[in-house]
Amino acid sequence: MGEGGRRSGRQARQAERATKGGGMGRPYILRNIPTYDVLSEENLQRIEAAADRVLAETGIEFRDDPVALDHWRRAGARVDGLLVKFEPGMLREILASAPREFTQHARNPANNVQIGGKSVVFAPAYGSPFVMDLDRGRRFGTIEDFRNFIKLAQSSPNFHHSGGTICEPTDVAVNKRHLEMVLAHIELSDRPFMGSVTAEERSEDSIEMCRILFGADFVDKNCVILGNVNVNSPLVWDGTMTGAIRAYAEANQCSVIVPFILGGAMGPVTTAGALAQAYAEAMVGIALTQLVRPGAPAIFGNFLSSMSLRSGAPTFGMPEPSLAYFAFGALARRSKLPFRLGGHLTASKAVDAQAAQEAADTMMASMLCGANFVLHAAGWLEGGLVMSYEKFVLDADHCGMMHRLAEGIALDDNGFAMSAFEEVGPGNHFFGSKHTFANYETAFHEPELSDNASFEQWRDMGGEDAAQRANRRWKEMLAAYQPPPMDEGTDEALKAFVAKRKESMPDAWH
Amino acid sequence: MGEGGRRSGRQARQAERATKGGGMGRPYILRNIPTYDVLSEENLQRIEAAADRVLAETGIEFRDDPVALDHWRRAGARVDGLLVKFEPGMLREILASAPREFTQHARNPANNVQIGGKSVVFAPAYGSPFVMDLDRGRRFGTIEDFRNFIKLAQSSPNFHHSGGTICEPTDVAVNKRHLEMVLAHIELSDRPFMGSVTAEERSEDSIEMCRILFGADFVDKNCVILGNVNVNSPLVWDGTMTGAIRAYAEANQCSVIVPFILGGAMGPVTTAGALAQAYAEAMVGIALTQLVRPGAPAIFGNFLSSMSLRSGAPTFGMPEPSLAYFAFGALARRSKLPFRLGGHLTASKAVDAQAAQEAADTMMASMLCGANFVLHAAGWLEGGLVMSYEKFVLDADHCGMMHRLAEGIALDDNGFAMSAFEEVGPGNHFFGSKHTFANYETAFHEPELSDNASFEQWRDMGGEDAAQRANRRWKEMLAAYQPPPMDEGTDEALKAFVAKRKESMPDAWH
Repeated sequence: MGEGGRRSGRQARQAERATKGGGMGRPYILRNIPTYDVLSEENLQRIEAAADRVLAETGIEFRDDPVALDHWRRAGARVDGLLVKFEPGMLREILASAPREFTQHARNPANNVQIGGKSVVFAPAYGSPFVMDLDRGRRFGTIEDFRNFIKLAQSSPNFHHSGGTICEPTDVAVNKRHLEMVLAHIELSDRPFMGSVTAEERSEDSIEMCRILFGADFVDKNCVILGNVNVNSPLVWDGTMTGAIRAYAEANQCSVIVPFILGGAMGPVTTAGALAQAYAEAMVGIALTQLVRPGAPAIFGNFLSSMSLRSGAPTFGMPEPSLAYFAFGALARRSKLPFRLGGHLTASKAVDAQAAQEAADTMMASMLCGANFVLHAAGWLEGGLVMSYEKFVLDADHCGMMHRLAEGIALDDNGFAMSAFEEVGPGNHFFGSKHTFANYETAFHEPELSDNASFEQWRDMGGEDAAQRANRRWKEMLAAYQPPPMDEGTDEALKAFVAKRKESMPDAWH
Repeated sequence: MGEGGRRSGRQARQAERATKGGGMGRPYILRNIPTYDVLSEENLQRIEAAADRVLAETGIEFRDDPVALDHWRRAGARVDGLLVKFEPGMLREILASAPREFTQHARNPANNVQIGGKSVVFAPAYGSPFVMDLDRGRRFGTIEDFRNFIKLAQSSPNFHHSGGTICEPTDVAVNKRHLEMVLAHIELSDRPFMGSVTAEERSEDSIEMCRILFGADFVDKNCVILGNVNVNSPLVWDGTMTGAIRAYAEANQCSVIVPFILGGAMGPVTTAGALAQAYAEAMVGIALTQLVRPGAPAIFGNFLSSMSLRSGAPTFGMPEPSLAYFAFGALARRSKLPFRLGGHLTASKAVDAQAAQEAADTMMASMLCGANFVLHAAGWLEGGLVMSYEKFVLDADHCGMMHRLAEGIALDDNGFAMSAFEEVGPGNHFFGSKHTFANYETAFHEPELSDNASFEQWRDMGGEDAAQRANRRWKEMLAAYQPPPMDEGTDEALKAFVAKRKESMPDAWH
């Protein structure tokens, strides 16, 4: 087991993972472990009944969008001013035309991801105004930071998706950010990505850029972009969000429908009620996509957090949301829809033990509940206000562990190792056995950033903590980054589109 | 929702938890969530068959213990020199007399714990030679440290058990440590605890002190002490360990039987093989307790870690052991035995993001696999070489989260919050609603050490990370510690026993 042999074996294995994207030969995870279900069928039915009751008795408001109200009128809902009420079962019937699973295409077809069923797709965190690293501290995000995070994600075999608004590029005008962000995703990554939803025209620009990249006909027939649409919980949809739904669905692209509930504020403080509300709100959004275009892909999303009694601030990684994840997964499967949940969430301000504990618990719940699309899988800090460079690469490492977890236990003859027992016998070490030799390269997952050296070795190497090791690592990754090859003509056409759209309007900063 | 009202409510709730030990009115957790099972019945049978094959074909060596060999001969095993081989099914038949569940009594009966079934008991980490804190750094443990950790455990409502050799009191002679340690557990805590196993006479001393505390007749009829007995994996039991088993079982006390496997060294590098070996070794140990005294309580234990490919060092919190936990839980339930597994394990040298991530993943797997006795639930650092004061209180906080997780989701009318939807309606906040007001004290778990304040508040308060907050917290806890009341006569008798035993032998330092 010489050092030379070990190195080349490891390198080969890593190269293979990098090429294949890490998912056992797929560019996404295909779960080989069961989901963890905490609620009985009877209790799932009770949550469904509670959601139906909220929809029928309290109803949902649609603000600033007469087109959406028309959709509901035609579908047979009771529309009274802005308030819409739904008969039990009506929405489940409408949303049944949404696909149970679909493929999101990447510009590199080897990176196409399957969304739904047993597949799991990891994408970076989304939406933070600030970024942070150990050298420069906490500051507003810029387009350079945005591009850096795309490069980091693209460089890691543990992600499958380039994400969307990884951080706000606050140095770019608000009405032009989407153009720069979509261009950066396309140029710097060859994985699937997300578009803008902050205005209907920005959604349409995002999709139009995909038409330049993939061709208009291909886009009409295939999913190439996701838009993440938050509900204005409780029980409200505003015109911006329903406009985004319309833009994506009309183009046969995917809306991720996300009730956004901080328990005790935008929903009940108790978990069962918050689940019922989230289920109701998600059904409404998914059904709307199907009224716009039956068969358009959609993802049943959820963002549920708990609250600190001391301050009213949102908390993350707490047991109540983890329990809700397990329940929500079962509700999504009942609805026969792909679902989005989770990530590496935390309320911590530093890349410390709190951050890691909260993030690990949230991610474990995301994995075991069977989430298909895990946004916020890397970088999230401070309740989502900050994208952290160091946490990004630490989370990437943990995503690698989740890959291995999802593979389950190999129960073939090699896994059972009966030959090794015969060879080794009582009291002897397995280290030199043929079975160990044949398996040691692949038997155990080896994270990049965990330090397993002895105290003395660790101390003599500088005694760095995990955040300091991560600081070195992201710089190495950025330095080694190579952009994926891109067709020059397409790139020019995209750049021309962006330039033309930017010229067409003055900068707006809010 | 005034600050005064909030405080008194929180204080009352915390006082109630402290009194009751945190377990929903019980001094242990009673799980209200299902276990997570990754293997089918067919695959569990395959692991059982593999264990049977190892036992029948490779066998187990019993070194330096002719009494144990006699037990096996009488039980009908094939004994050849030191090697013992077992017919398939034979051990399962013998171990069937071990209780499926039992009570371990505490000197304060309100703190008696149930071990087995749906109960979960948390105990501090065990066995580290070193201790560490942020002020004094890493150093050898002393009897003062040992006593401090008992005080910290006793002061937290999130533990149920005082543990055993929390750290090695290296300033006490090796042959007298057990006397000081058991005395400290009895005097400083009124929870259940563990005794020594490092020599048969030390096991007997530990039990004899329990006879002074509880009365000899009570001890003969009830479990009052646990001894944690590691197997000399692979497939060897030495006389020290089988001697400890004999001492505990003869006294009707509980042995925790723990195969100790670092995959690739003391067992196969592949998980299925390591599971088969651990299952085989544990069955042998449990069966031996029943040959010594049928009906004596025993715990089916497991300590399985993965290995770094870079260094051969043990790794913790990795996906392979987590998967093995889920499988081992199912095997223990098949065997109808209480089981020990897990804790807050990590290989990190610092109380950093690595430590917290690895510990959180290990503990989540421990909870979801259904472990009944979770040793190493607090303080473990550096692969078990170090007890950390700061990690101890951070882990305690996470244990509190696990309490809440185990409660599951309340699905009563209050949980569904239908009245709140009627009151609040679309677009309004739930913060001021009657339902929120009635539930906010208990709706969300509030950890002590997580910081959920805003960045500005956090920064202005000093910008402490979790380890720094933990450093303040353990000092506060030690300062506030009050010893539980103790009968003076009993205390004097225990002190006299310890003094007499210490006088009876010269100090031995190895």
